[in-house]
Amino acid sequence: MNTTIRRSFAIIGSGAVGGFYGARLQRAGFSVHFLLNHDYPFVRDNGLRIDSKDGNFQLPHVNAYDCIDKMPPCDVVIIALKTVHNAILPQLLPSLIKPNGCVLVLQNGLGIEQEIAKVVGTTHVLGGLCFICSNKMGPGHICHLASGHIALGEYLPNDQAAGITLSMKDLADDFTRAGIKINLSEDLNIARWKKLVWNIPYNGLSVVLDATTDQLMKNPLSRMLVKNIMQEVIVGAAACKHSIADTYVQEMLDYTDSMISYKTSMKIDYDEKRPMEVEAIFGNPLRAIVNAHSCAPRIEMLYQELNYLDKKK
Amino acid sequence: MNTTIRRSFAIIGSGAVGGFYGARLQRAGFSVHFLLNHDYPFVRDNGLRIDSKDGNFQLPHVNAYDCIDKMPPCDVVIIALKTVHNAILPQLLPSLIKPNGCVLVLQNGLGIEQEIAKVVGTTHVLGGLCFICSNKMGPGHICHLASGHIALGEYLPNDQAAGITLSMKDLADDFTRAGIKINLSEDLNIARWKKLVWNIPYNGLSVVLDATTDQLMKNPLSRMLVKNIMQEVIVGAAACKHSIADTYVQEMLDYTDSMISYKTSMKIDYDEKRPMEVEAIFGNPLRAIVNAHSCAPRIEMLYQELNYLDKKK
Repeated sequence: MNTTIRRSFAIIGSGAVGGFYGARLQRAGFSVHFLLNHDYPFVRDNGLRIDSKDGNFQLPHVNAYDCIDKMPPCDVVIIALKTVHNAILPQLLPSLIKPNGCVLVLQNGLGIEQEIAKVVGTTHVLGGLCFICSNKMGPGHICHLASGHIALGEYLPNDQAAGITLSMKDLADDFTRAGIKINLSEDLNIARWKKLVWNIPYNGLSVVLDATTDQLMKNPLSRMLVKNIMQEVIVGAAACKHSIADTYVQEMLDYTDSMISYKTSMKIDYDEKRPMEVEAIFGNPLRAIVNAHSCAPRIEMLYQELNYLDKKK
Repeated sequence: MNTTIRRSFAIIGSGAVGGFYGARLQRAGFSVHFLLNHDYPFVRDNGLRIDSKDGNFQLPHVNAYDCIDKMPPCDVVIIALKTVHNAILPQLLPSLIKPNGCVLVLQNGLGIEQEIAKVVGTTHVLGGLCFICSNKMGPGHICHLASGHIALGEYLPNDQAAGITLSMKDLADDFTRAGIKINLSEDLNIARWKKLVWNIPYNGLSVVLDATTDQLMKNPLSRMLVKNIMQEVIVGAAACKHSIADTYVQEMLDYTDSMISYKTSMKIDYDEKRPMEVEAIFGNPLRAIVNAHSCAPRIEMLYQELNYLDKKK
């Protein structure tokens, strides 16, 4: 296997998502550089361990960093931090991207690429929506429970659809080589709103009601609430000129019914008293809907409830 | 003081509300009969102790009962149970009311008098909305923290307004004698909806967000949510042809700002793993609004959230 022609990856935020995809890329022969926080000493000494429904594996040696300044410039910079830490990016991101490199944002929510694009100038910015159930079990130890595919799109300013671009195809080739299924989206905006159809009800209600996904689906009234909120997201997206078929609601309900009992990432953040991604996942979509002269009372209520819980901690 | 001409009262549910008003009536010279549940042996032996902002007092001896069958027929039967226990009333209520007696329902929510009226035939049924902060501290020990007045109205079928009736005036005389301020309402429906303007946001959100009233008022977003929900209750009441001035929202916000930090009764029920009054306070108003071809997304969402939490316990 000739790894020298392969592109290099920087993983900014090597948790349940970044750590998993980075490990898969390294296993496929790519040069991967992992930025870590608290887990740095452990991962530097012990590497990464991935327990996955697709097969367990270990990487005894990885390129681990505790500081973005020490990382080499890479072809692809993957942002897999929680959005609440994005304030650190403007200072650090530009020097990390090789000429002709690109940034791939693997974060949930809305309005993320817009902020990144401001910082990185003409560099291509892509967004990936990860349909994955994975949890960090301990330092350097990630458990991949279900799904794993990514909906990929390229960012253009002013909510334009970029179509299928060369940057997207190149990234899809890399991930496919690592065994990760990529769905190319001609319109990143729609891909992001579609992801919100899942994230807004489940992330929000899992925190407010202290519930796993299957518990929310089991009670008829909370199940109806999930559905009501999904419909509200689709109406809101339409107000912002991003059309999603109504049938997508049932698709997401079926998808969740087929999942194992899952604790959402926002619920894990809440339980571990970490800040929640309230603005990226709730505040930004809500403001987009209001700016489009529409309203979304349930999303607004969930936003208000989560803001209260987030600030109270 | 001639107590023989005074009317007799049965208190069905001698907790923070029924126990407080019953004790005040007994102290004023009325013959009062208290139905108790777990606290029966203690109250039979020790009476009641009221710690009140209006002055503490004790009643070493009260007429205590552990069973409605043993109680004498009374002129006024006060229902101060939680609505979740109302299913026991049809069997027991009729024999407890003296000829020409009346029933006073001191419960929150909507559609309560309608159910009672079915049982008691031509007996007058009145409703009282208690604006009171009181908590049961232990067996026979009630702490009255703030307010205490009652908005009183008489029930007529089909949402009709009864005006100011003789039964209302008689009851107001009795309570006034006991030092309790009574506001007479020409329309019980409006009195009930006005109480819901307070109960729906504070009872609901105190449970969902694990919060006291002052905590909800302090965070700007949860405060806005309280206000949004109050406005939705007023719009819903209007759809049901019960008009409340928009200024009532600010009045209720000011009232709550002036209160001490208060844990709502629904939150106490939830914390003590007792059933919550979800149907009376949320389900019935919501169904009334939907039947009037209107909608109330925030009330509906709160109803769905509380149903989930109530069933999960």
